[in-house]
Amino acid sequence: MDSYTIQMSSNGSLPPVLDVPVNIGGRSSLPGKMKGRKPRWSVRPSDMANQTFNPIRAIVDSMKVKPNPNKTMISLSIGDPTVFGNLPTDAEVTQAMKDALDSGKYNGYAPSIGYLSSREEIASYYHCPEAPLEAKDVILTSGCSQAIELCLAVLANPGQNILVPRPGFSLYRTLAESMGIEVKLYNLLPEQSWEIDLKQLESLIDEKTACLIVNNPSNPCGSVFRKSHLQKILEVAARQCVPILADEIYGDMVFSDCKYEPLATLSTHVPILSCGGLAKRWLVPGWRMGWILIHDRRDILGNEIRDGLVKLSQRILGPCTIVQGALKSILRRTPQEFYHNTLSFLKSNADLCYAALAAIPGLQPVRPSGAMYLMVGIEMHHFPEFENDVEFTEQLVAEQSVHCLPATCFEYPNFFRVVITVPEVMMLEACSRIQEFCEQHYHCTDGNQEECDK
Amino acid sequence: MDSYTIQMSSNGSLPPVLDVPVNIGGRSSLPGKMKGRKPRWSVRPSDMANQTFNPIRAIVDSMKVKPNPNKTMISLSIGDPTVFGNLPTDAEVTQAMKDALDSGKYNGYAPSIGYLSSREEIASYYHCPEAPLEAKDVILTSGCSQAIELCLAVLANPGQNILVPRPGFSLYRTLAESMGIEVKLYNLLPEQSWEIDLKQLESLIDEKTACLIVNNPSNPCGSVFRKSHLQKILEVAARQCVPILADEIYGDMVFSDCKYEPLATLSTHVPILSCGGLAKRWLVPGWRMGWILIHDRRDILGNEIRDGLVKLSQRILGPCTIVQGALKSILRRTPQEFYHNTLSFLKSNADLCYAALAAIPGLQPVRPSGAMYLMVGIEMHHFPEFENDVEFTEQLVAEQSVHCLPATCFEYPNFFRVVITVPEVMMLEACSRIQEFCEQHYHCTDGNQEECDK
Repeated sequence: MDSYTIQMSSNGSLPPVLDVPVNIGGRSSLPGKMKGRKPRWSVRPSDMANQTFNPIRAIVDSMKVKPNPNKTMISLSIGDPTVFGNLPTDAEVTQAMKDALDSGKYNGYAPSIGYLSSREEIASYYHCPEAPLEAKDVILTSGCSQAIELCLAVLANPGQNILVPRPGFSLYRTLAESMGIEVKLYNLLPEQSWEIDLKQLESLIDEKTACLIVNNPSNPCGSVFRKSHLQKILEVAARQCVPILADEIYGDMVFSDCKYEPLATLSTHVPILSCGGLAKRWLVPGWRMGWILIHDRRDILGNEIRDGLVKLSQRILGPCTIVQGALKSILRRTPQEFYHNTLSFLKSNADLCYAALAAIPGLQPVRPSGAMYLMVGIEMHHFPEFENDVEFTEQLVAEQSVHCLPATCFEYPNFFRVVITVPEVMMLEACSRIQEFCEQHYHCTDGNQEECDK
Repeated sequence: MDSYTIQMSSNGSLPPVLDVPVNIGGRSSLPGKMKGRKPRWSVRPSDMANQTFNPIRAIVDSMKVKPNPNKTMISLSIGDPTVFGNLPTDAEVTQAMKDALDSGKYNGYAPSIGYLSSREEIASYYHCPEAPLEAKDVILTSGCSQAIELCLAVLANPGQNILVPRPGFSLYRTLAESMGIEVKLYNLLPEQSWEIDLKQLESLIDEKTACLIVNNPSNPCGSVFRKSHLQKILEVAARQCVPILADEIYGDMVFSDCKYEPLATLSTHVPILSCGGLAKRWLVPGWRMGWILIHDRRDILGNEIRDGLVKLSQRILGPCTIVQGALKSILRRTPQEFYHNTLSFLKSNADLCYAALAAIPGLQPVRPSGAMYLMVGIEMHHFPEFENDVEFTEQLVAEQSVHCLPATCFEYPNFFRVVITVPEVMMLEACSRIQEFCEQHYHCTDGNQEECDK
């Protein structure tokens, strides 16, 4: 007892490593010792921690350049519509949260998959004849990220693989690799508005393929698949018997000139776990309200997968109950004008940005149809000073204080991604700075003289 | 192309299982096929999902009894202080949330470990000379459950083991087993106010022991360790070089007659990850605001573990930003009276419950010193009708409509747990019903005649 006290009151004068076991009341002969544990501090992070890798962080953090001090920084890199203050959420959404707080009914624990009433609201909001939904088909999660994590965790074992789009959102790989799941990349074709190379996709599928991730509308492409293309994707899944994880967080965020088709409305038999949330459409990504919609009309997933999702949800117990309590009003009261205004702003910004960048020699923007992004191809042979898209965007920061994410972050080199949620004036200023940058670094290549004479 | 359309427009008339590969434009000779994948639906939940097991759910869900229709149900089973409406959170806490909403500053993504300003607030709130804290030592999580999950995920690999109290909170096992981590149970001694059997604890430690979980104050025991006992626990950890995960979610929730000592204030060299949150003390468990406090003054965990926690936090991106934004006001403005009133209510309920149950032949309640629980031993030999605590509590529901959790849920048979957050009148009614139940089922055993003559 005393020896404890002496030791504990040593105010750090003791060495942190006790190589010589202290004999206290014979404790030195405890089985703990017998088992030969070396009493030496050695605390190492787990393999899972070591395998958890965020490419965007890795690439961006390694970009050591300083912006041009004479130009205010314009960041077109963050997929967060709230950062510039020009896209606030609707007043009804905020009011719904206050009402939930005032009710005092939403401070306690909810079921780990969410309140039944909240799941009923989500089900009826997304229900349609082609893809019916009930509360039992809805699982609420801490953001769409957790929805995706739970789907991968229930569908795949370590050693299995999943099919992920290239270019694509980096979280798929981050989650999969942290769980020991292999990532196989299928190609999106820029010249075909980022449609999937279906032959190459199908060629990747093997007996270890646990699921196919379809992200529509797409981050980083801003592309929206046509109905016929979605049907072809479903055909591959049906023929190969691969369930689909549909990342539809940008669902309904498409421009007036095209239509969004929820994947599940186009299939009667392919099991689809559709992941969504409030983040993008309601402009509150920080609130961490996501959900999984289980579409399994042929009962292929069955109760086992449903139960698996429920069990996995019990590990950290779902999203904030205040947001859950606010869901009903958020879904019912948010005015159509709000959605309309957001989309027309994004469309006009997209058009401005596309037109401006399309006119710049050496750049090849791809016109988006939805979401909040636009991908721009860099004709690297015209910019010989730069090794790749990372160096290109790095120097763009250094000279013009404009920050775009190099598409290497999305496993798609020689492109960069532009976020189109910035205020119009900032969007235009950024484009003209990109133009100035490109003009200063553009080099003709042999046989392209006429191009240079433009 | 047509063959796709035909197939997709078949409105489910196609069999869900396509045993015969459909030959479409030569696609049947794709490498995908060559790899010999059998095109047959077979979607099974992952091992992780199958290994995720919540004993409370399993035991409670299997209790098939109906309550007595002539008596209103009194549930003393749920560790949620909000269910009876008698313990609302403070008005300042709700106001802090509204202010965060009105500011419009907290709708976007926060860093995955939480806003710097919010982490600074937590650090300064829990900072003390013996255990200094800075923002870099704080990680915000989606509830204390995720705090515990991240700590286990960063410290332990599959095949390693962790030391968990018996009786103890079932989430430790649920999380560990879902990650393939072995659970070793160390004993708490009811006759010593649930102090740890230190010799048995130390005997469990081997070279595969990744961490020691210390839960103080305790769920389900309601016990609070004395300073000298905490020092002895730290001594074991120091001698065996095992880092500690301190589940201190009930920190500061101790009754006036005893003192709570944060574990980290008693050690200068044992690395301690202290997990806490708003759930219990601020009576908002549904809000899912938790945190990890990293105490590592000898730099034994080092940057590797810190970086590991940061990387793991990027998998689902932390707690709701509105609650993060409200933290500053919640911590600074919640009046002392609020904490005081909660504790004096719990203390008086605990005293009432203890006195009532201690007077019942066949029951052996253990007086709690904090948290929201009280454990009651059942002298099973005096209740021969019942096989165990599960049958005892089951029949208590059937006859008296009083629901207590059998301590088998906490790996401690022949006890049951009483939640003491219910209104006083309900507490008293429940106790008298338990008395009636025990009197009806109590049987003398040989040589205990005098006991029966009481």
